Amino acid sequence: MKLSKSFWKTYKEKPTDAEIPSHVLMTRAGLISKSGSGIYNLLPFGLKSIRKIENIIRKHLDQIGSMEISMSVVTPGELWKESGRWKDFGSEMLKFSDKLNKDLCISPTNEEAVTDIFRKSVKSYKDLPVSLYQINTKFRDEIRPRFGVMRGREFIMKDAYTFHADKDCLDREYKNFYQAYENIFKDLGLDFRVVEADAGAMAGPGSQTHEFQVLADTGEDELIYSDSYAANIETANTQKVINIELQSVTGELDLISTPNESTCEDVAKLLGINIQETLKCLVFKSIKDGSEEIIISVVFGDDEINEVKLKNYLASDHLTVATDNDLMDANLVKGFMGPVDIKPRVIFDSSIPKDKAFVIGGNKEGYHQRNFAISKFYANPETIDIRLAKENDLDKSGKPVKICRGIEVGHIFQLGDKYTKSLSTTVLDKNGKSMSPLMGCYGIGVSRILGAAIEQSHDEKGIIWPKNISPFDLHFIAIAKSEEYSKISEEIYHQFKNAGIDVLFDDRNVGPGFKFKDADLLGIPLQLVFGERDYKENKTLNIINRKSGEKITIKAEEALGVFLELNEKL
Amino acid sequence: MKLSKSFWKTYKEKPTDAEIPSHVLMTRAGLISKSGSGIYNLLPFGLKSIRKIENIIRKHLDQIGSMEISMSVVTPGELWKESGRWKDFGSEMLKFSDKLNKDLCISPTNEEAVTDIFRKSVKSYKDLPVSLYQINTKFRDEIRPRFGVMRGREFIMKDAYTFHADKDCLDREYKNFYQAYENIFKDLGLDFRVVEADAGAMAGPGSQTHEFQVLADTGEDELIYSDSYAANIETANTQKVINIELQSVTGELDLISTPNESTCEDVAKLLGINIQETLKCLVFKSIKDGSEEIIISVVFGDDEINEVKLKNYLASDHLTVATDNDLMDANLVKGFMGPVDIKPRVIFDSSIPKDKAFVIGGNKEGYHQRNFAISKFYANPETIDIRLAKENDLDKSGKPVKICRGIEVGHIFQLGDKYTKSLSTTVLDKNGKSMSPLMGCYGIGVSRILGAAIEQSHDEKGIIWPKNISPFDLHFIAIAKSEEYSKISEEIYHQFKNAGIDVLFDDRNVGPGFKFKDADLLGIPLQLVFGERDYKENKTLNIINRKSGEKITIKAEEALGVFLELNEKL
Repeated sequence: MKLSKSFWKTYKEKPTDAEIPSHVLMTRAGLISKSGSGIYNLLPFGLKSIRKIENIIRKHLDQIGSMEISMSVVTPGELWKESGRWKDFGSEMLKFSDKLNKDLCISPTNEEAVTDIFRKSVKSYKDLPVSLYQINTKFRDEIRPRFGVMRGREFIMKDAYTFHADKDCLDREYKNFYQAYENIFKDLGLDFRVVEADAGAMAGPGSQTHEFQVLADTGEDELIYSDSYAANIETANTQKVINIELQSVTGELDLISTPNESTCEDVAKLLGINIQETLKCLVFKSIKDGSEEIIISVVFGDDEINEVKLKNYLASDHLTVATDNDLMDANLVKGFMGPVDIKPRVIFDSSIPKDKAFVIGGNKEGYHQRNFAISKFYANPETIDIRLAKENDLDKSGKPVKICRGIEVGHIFQLGDKYTKSLSTTVLDKNGKSMSPLMGCYGIGVSRILGAAIEQSHDEKGIIWPKNISPFDLHFIAIAKSEEYSKISEEIYHQFKNAGIDVLFDDRNVGPGFKFKDADLLGIPLQLVFGERDYKENKTLNIINRKSGEKITIKAEEALGVFLELNEKL
Repeated sequence: MKLSKSFWKTYKEKPTDAEIPSHVLMTRAGLISKSGSGIYNLLPFGLKSIRKIENIIRKHLDQIGSMEISMSVVTPGELWKESGRWKDFGSEMLKFSDKLNKDLCISPTNEEAVTDIFRKSVKSYKDLPVSLYQINTKFRDEIRPRFGVMRGREFIMKDAYTFHADKDCLDREYKNFYQAYENIFKDLGLDFRVVEADAGAMAGPGSQTHEFQVLADTGEDELIYSDSYAANIETANTQKVINIELQSVTGELDLISTPNESTCEDVAKLLGINIQETLKCLVFKSIKDGSEEIIISVVFGDDEINEVKLKNYLASDHLTVATDNDLMDANLVKGFMGPVDIKPRVIFDSSIPKDKAFVIGGNKEGYHQRNFAISKFYANPETIDIRLAKENDLDKSGKPVKICRGIEVGHIFQLGDKYTKSLSTTVLDKNGKSMSPLMGCYGIGVSRILGAAIEQSHDEKGIIWPKNISPFDLHFIAIAKSEEYSKISEEIYHQFKNAGIDVLFDDRNVGPGFKFKDADLLGIPLQLVFGERDYKENKTLNIINRKSGEKITIKAEEALGVFLELNEKL
């Protein structure tokens, strides 16, 4: 493609609302154009990358026998009312009504729609499994869209759904998708990690779910990993390391003055003890089926609460940190709470030894108390794993874990019969009995991948594309003033083009500095430079690796061969 | 693709809301599944055809240097308010607001969005022309969606937009698109006609517009054509044929009793004159800038009014046939109106000779009057071409025209500077002066093409696909009971597959009649039939042309060669 005839413009300025590199670079490199808050137009070069991503996804899903369909972007409210999600989905679903006053929404996801398609045509276990996918536009009305296409409101998603007669079949297909996803993200050239994910409170027993996370410092997710374990911190199952020998209780509760110490850290310092000899209380308000409950959660002084686990355990509809008012209503003293003589329900983290002594809040402004042990005050304490996993916790095999950040680009999920049940979808089983098929669902954030790839691979000059999703194979920069040499550069362009290389030819009438800056910003992995002087003197061109900056001078007649070789190695 | 592993089901029943063959057949053949009123999901085989259509379009647009982009499906209301179309577009635009109460709509078209993209990046005539296209989802909230995907509310459209520094450039690009469209519709295998289209009241002088119409009896548009002329009836410019010698006026107006005759036909019969010696009055109500006007339009007794032309001439915002109440308010007598002594504005069709005598209504219940001539009563009559063209009118070269019906699948249009002006979009011209670029827009109804192709090509058994948009190249039907022969049929399938043929393999465990019926319904142009008995006895297969029904018996080893030959000839 000739740049002189292309619709492409780059920008020096970063967009005022951009917080992360990918948003800055996608805008500056002319890949996207903002349409509205969290809504973007894909410009030609951005769309080219999107198409490559889509085709890689298609290739691997076709291989596992999933069939592509395209569900409508707008779906009738009726279907969502039938499943109950018209009410339950939350405010991210953009609802409206048409001129006949019928409820509609722009689909934020398609479980209902695909189940409706399924129930209209499949009647027997013989037609199972069914595996369908689509790549289309979705909309979620995020309150604070940000990060460009990474957390936009309108986005392109690949979503797949499978239907099964039994759990074995679901497990097999889940494995197929797991494998296909690994292949997809490898093909996309991304550094990613598969992690166990939060299955939510409603997940059935044995119901699996995994996230595919692109590793990047700007990722919104925290991942816990070791050689043999990886999980989203939300769901991570690790063992706490207790660094000291905890003491047994030596007497009654002992009130001590801690006038200015309201954090466990300060209390430990004041008392000259290890922070692991203190317990921390955190108070939440859980709303379930419309009624509120105050929950006191207790963890080691050096731990934090995993709110997702707590919410799942409580099966809350909403879980929020209690406000000062909530605390006052419950007679709790902020900064000085202890799990003794208080009314609300108390939940202890299961890592806390029940008969060891800890310092806890005194339930009195300016006081803590020593000599608390769970077993002394609770005959049947409610204990679950609610602490947030952290670096150096141990995995199941006793190895310390690390933390990194990731961008969720894929999520696979065993749904069970939630949607087939709520949408009265049945097939006849082998014995002629009616059964609700089990479902799996499998998502990939297609537009988000663009952003994630750039977060993972860029430098101060611009983007550095993984080759399989680069808008072009080669950026050919011609620096020629005379017509004679412009013609030669054009011949070289055609030589590459005719060899099937998708080459971007910078034949614009602008200075070399401008061209080089644009090329580095756009980030095609290999740049070929035709300089009139070099060519005139030595018949040479330069080929530059965008990532390493390495420059090789080559004879003109070798250019194609060298390019193919370097490209192969990328 | 093996049917035993495919998600595909056919139906015997026609959908209750289907009025035309394509809607019936697309549903029965399992190409689409209804999601809601005027909203459809594309099932695997339907989507395959859509993708083929899209790729043919892409090929030809890429060839003329148009660049693909993808604009957001949801666009902010602001942009439409800026252009004025938030108010003017009409109720087909589906508007709503997000959780921050900002106005949004699902784009029914994208002139505003593309102009916004353009104005953010192009500043100089040097960067012109710009040519951009997209293939994406649009929504128009039709009050009466019908005909399946042909007049759905959600649909896939290819829309292209070009920007130019001058009319010459616009004309050149318009010609490129015209040519590309001809190539596209030829490649799609459609029998189509390019016709002059209605440019609307706002079109500038010399502003061209053409429609690409697929010929089909069920088409909603009427087309006027001769060897050298073709136009949508809405805009057709033809010459009326007057079959008799009209008489001059012989005296004063002469009231005659026509007690039961309110149509021109009946009056002519009663008086023993030719219907062309009568004039017909039709009354309309025109709303413009909020104020109403009653208009009496007068044509020959055997003519009808072209409402589009009248509306354009009046530059009405809305034009409707006057109601009985409107007539009463204007003191007009229904069935007996004449253009004499009445208050409303009268517009005569320009084909009516001004000094010839006609019978007109008497403006009195049960009466007509003779001896009316325009020149006798109107010093400056308002005359324009407002009659509806009809069969046997003459084109400019004097040849009689015919009428046929068409389905509009493409429309190209010179927009002028309407949107660049309203959206304050300027570039600097050669002299450093600011100018509003001229635009062209070019649409193709992608999902509608599916329906149009089927309207044009089907029989009582089902669809007959044009080969380039058929979901598959070949429908291979295996009729084998034994495992041994099933295996042989599978080998033949792989032979075709390995040769790069997109073959649908009916390996299902159902009876031959069922398979043949499904194959005819789905309509792949060539069917290959493997019958166990034939193969066992003679090593032969049959190859059937879906359209002609012709069946050829061939040796197994010739099958691929014969298929390729027949396919080439399709």
